[in-house]
Amino acid sequence: MSELPIVAVNYKAYPTAFGAKGLEIAKEADRIAKEFKGSVKIVLAVPLTEIYRISSSTEEVTVYAQHADPIEPGAHTGFTPLEAIKEAGAKGVLLNHSEHKLILSDIVWLVEKAKKLNLETMVCADNYEAAAAIAALSPSYIAVEPPELIGTGIPVSKAKPEVIVKSVEAVHRIAKIPVLAGAGITKGEDVEAAIRLGSVGVLVASAVMKASNPGAKIRELVEAAARAWSARK
Amino acid sequence: MSELPIVAVNYKAYPTAFGAKGLEIAKEADRIAKEFKGSVKIVLAVPLTEIYRISSSTEEVTVYAQHADPIEPGAHTGFTPLEAIKEAGAKGVLLNHSEHKLILSDIVWLVEKAKKLNLETMVCADNYEAAAAIAALSPSYIAVEPPELIGTGIPVSKAKPEVIVKSVEAVHRIAKIPVLAGAGITKGEDVEAAIRLGSVGVLVASAVMKASNPGAKIRELVEAAARAWSARK
Amino acid sequence: MSELPIVAVNYKAYPTAFGAKGLEIAKEADRIAKEFKGSVKIVLAVPLTEIYRISSSTEEVTVYAQHADPIEPGAHTGFTPLEAIKEAGAKGVLLNHSEHKLILSDIVWLVEKAKKLNLETMVCADNYEAAAAIAALSPSYIAVEPPELIGTGIPVSKAKPEVIVKSVEAVHRIAKIPVLAGAGITKGEDVEAAIRLGSVGVLVASAVMKASNPGAKIRELVEAAARAWSARK
Amino acid sequence: MSELPIVAVNYKAYPTAFGAKGLEIAKEADRIAKEFKGSVKIVLAVPLTEIYRISSSTEEVTVYAQHADPIEPGAHTGFTPLEAIKEAGAKGVLLNHSEHKLILSDIVWLVEKAKKLNLETMVCADNYEAAAAIAALSPSYIAVEPPELIGTGIPVSKAKPEVIVKSVEAVHRIAKIPVLAGAGITKGEDVEAAIRLGSVGVLVASAVMKASNPGAKIRELVEAAARAWSARK
Repeated sequence: MSELPIVAVNYKAYPTAFGAKGLEIAKEADRIAKEFKGSVKIVLAVPLTEIYRISSSTEEVTVYAQHADPIEPGAHTGFTPLEAIKEAGAKGVLLNHSEHKLILSDIVWLVEKAKKLNLETMVCADNYEAAAAIAALSPSYIAVEPPELIGTGIPVSKAKPEVIVKSVEAVHRIAKIPVLAGAGITKGEDVEAAIRLGSVGVLVASAVMKASNPGAKIRELVEAAARAWSARK
Repeated sequence: MSELPIVAVNYKAYPTAFGAKGLEIAKEADRIAKEFKGSVKIVLAVPLTEIYRISSSTEEVTVYAQHADPIEPGAHTGFTPLEAIKEAGAKGVLLNHSEHKLILSDIVWLVEKAKKLNLETMVCADNYEAAAAIAALSPSYIAVEPPELIGTGIPVSKAKPEVIVKSVEAVHRIAKIPVLAGAGITKGEDVEAAIRLGSVGVLVASAVMKASNPGAKIRELVEAAARAWSARK
Repeated sequence: MSELPIVAVNYKAYPTAFGAKGLEIAKEADRIAKEFKGSVKIVLAVPLTEIYRISSSTEEVTVYAQHADPIEPGAHTGFTPLEAIKEAGAKGVLLNHSEHKLILSDIVWLVEKAKKLNLETMVCADNYEAAAAIAALSPSYIAVEPPELIGTGIPVSKAKPEVIVKSVEAVHRIAKIPVLAGAGITKGEDVEAAIRLGSVGVLVASAVMKASNPGAKIRELVEAAARAWSARK
Repeated sequence: MSELPIVAVNYKAYPTAFGAKGLEIAKEADRIAKEFKGSVKIVLAVPLTEIYRISSSTEEVTVYAQHADPIEPGAHTGFTPLEAIKEAGAKGVLLNHSEHKLILSDIVWLVEKAKKLNLETMVCADNYEAAAAIAALSPSYIAVEPPELIGTGIPVSKAKPEVIVKSVEAVHRIAKIPVLAGAGITKGEDVEAAIRLGSVGVLVASAVMKASNPGAKIRELVEAAARAWSARK
């Protein structure tokens, strides 16, 4: 079991993900992370091109890459090995997002290599069957997101609570890996519901990246995570 | 015709491409670029994760990305639109390298979109047929590299000079786009030969990135380019 | 210039493409092809799994594969070299359809290899820029299909006649390769318009494969092609 | 547990896989399958273009496709849905071979869809971690093949017996799915060793497809499987 609840923000390639805007969101998140230090873990999965800028301007948030390629450093043009994201300051990597699906054997390879490099892995699954398969590979986290709800604002915790419950069960039958819930999460109450259903937190994207006030939105989600986590213990 | 000869260095994902090492090579190249300002153009195609770090520490070299994905900014996890590389400081992008080949319609899309964003494009071709096809799309540059010579140290200008000659001819029949030569280029004399054969310069990788003294190697190539270019005019 | 106008039917993977249904459409098309022998060429691009069944039961239609992989025969599991489609009875291959786009260098390879094997190639392009690029590779035919019109029933010849005109011009500036028009073609009049605009015929799919009477639909298109072709000469 | 031992032959795209040669091997295999009916199951994974020809000329061998695409029938050019291979006569499908790796979520989808269509699935894994992940998806069979031994003639049962043992253990911890061993299998004794180590049989390719007498080679492997299976019970 994870020791802390998690709010993970996937920047994706939204216009707000890059340059000054992406940096400002990261700095806001970092202030909140410091405030909630010891009670909520905040993960920011940022664009490859922004890892260095964001990781060198923040201290408490955990910066992830949104992807890495299954290659060793060497003659690979335009590909990004795990060593590259580590050098740029990332502490982990999101893998197999439904917008960036991976070949099974590449997930195996990347999870194993990431362990050697001391990088966290959060591997996404579309459904509980895929979540169970991924559990056999022992990543740091598994994030379950029914793709049909991503970006809709209809929270998985309300529309398909059984996906969270069945995924947590299926994963834990194989290994004790913390499961996050994602897709359609937009409010504090969605986070609370997701944690009550057995997850350790949420993976969100548009709710923060398209918010008029991204910092306030992160704060709302983080407060809810802290609240639900205390209630649960 | 290009107004200046070009020495383009593809960092690839060599261990020296990242972090302090990659930055040091860029700073050396930048000093040389300042020295040869107005006589040779130096392009550095760096990893996505290093564009920001390198472009914000150099002034005269032209920083390229090694790849960009054919997407608009939005909900794309782990993909890199042209806007991302521009925000990070890139002035251009290498496309369709033989280690990262692209679908034809994506090359069409990327070249066109790059023009709107005022980014240069250097599109790679394996052979003169592909070079001719690419010429129809009007990129900024075309780099011809017989893949079987890449990384061998056997220079295309010596082993297959006809590939350079035929590519330049085939391209110029369709449009007046500057052609670079690549694959196996390691010495100043290779650069001179490539320019004599009709190219505007070279695309190199291992010759610099695996050199014991990358700065000295860049200087050798740049001096040769300047020399051959004056001889040609 | 092609000597005959062409009606090419892409079976795609429609339910009617397989087994007895796909065979019945092929036999109907074959009867029509015999009737219009010397005045219209009928191409059927059938599923890989149906090439043998259809080619061994027809005589006059030209059977194409819908795709082939850029490999030599050998240790490749589940891939289909050009030799495979030839052994099964195909006379040509559709390449780079907007539903199955190819890497530029694979198009180069496949077109060249197909010539050696005496197989025809019909390479698809989304727009006139791609059509021009493909012209440099000298395939047997180029089929231009704006992807946004595919399957809509809104004929390219009416909605975007300039795409046909510009593609024919752009292609012929580079090489004298016959151009087909596709996307939204459903009626005889669409075929006539396409030919009047400079194409040698049409590439259709749903108009035939989803028709209540596919044979009657093929006849309608073929008759129109014959009519428009005579008018043109 | 499988009721019968299995000898599965992957035709790949070897020159002998197509046309009259591929059919002759299938007919030989069919004769042997009839002889060993009730004691050994013979699977032939044939090229997409040969499924119809081979399945309509054999009775006792189990014909598989080497791949299928994760799509429903419809507007997909050059892709092969499971319905296509079924219509052509296949009884099952090989998936995720190391020469044709699949995205995890596509394996999930294909295995589930194949069950609905009553098609067998044999899903390949490079190592025991991947085998465990696949076990969570409940395919009909799992075939473990260390890719570095494929085509070498160095049998996995001799070079890496622990891969077979660990895979069988890892799979059976999750579900009781029969495991086949592959890579470098060329002789009867390799089959016997593989079965002794806990597998239900072997997946071979070059040993048969490049044999001077493919029928004799199949017979050797089948006899060994029958022998080892009796010894085991």
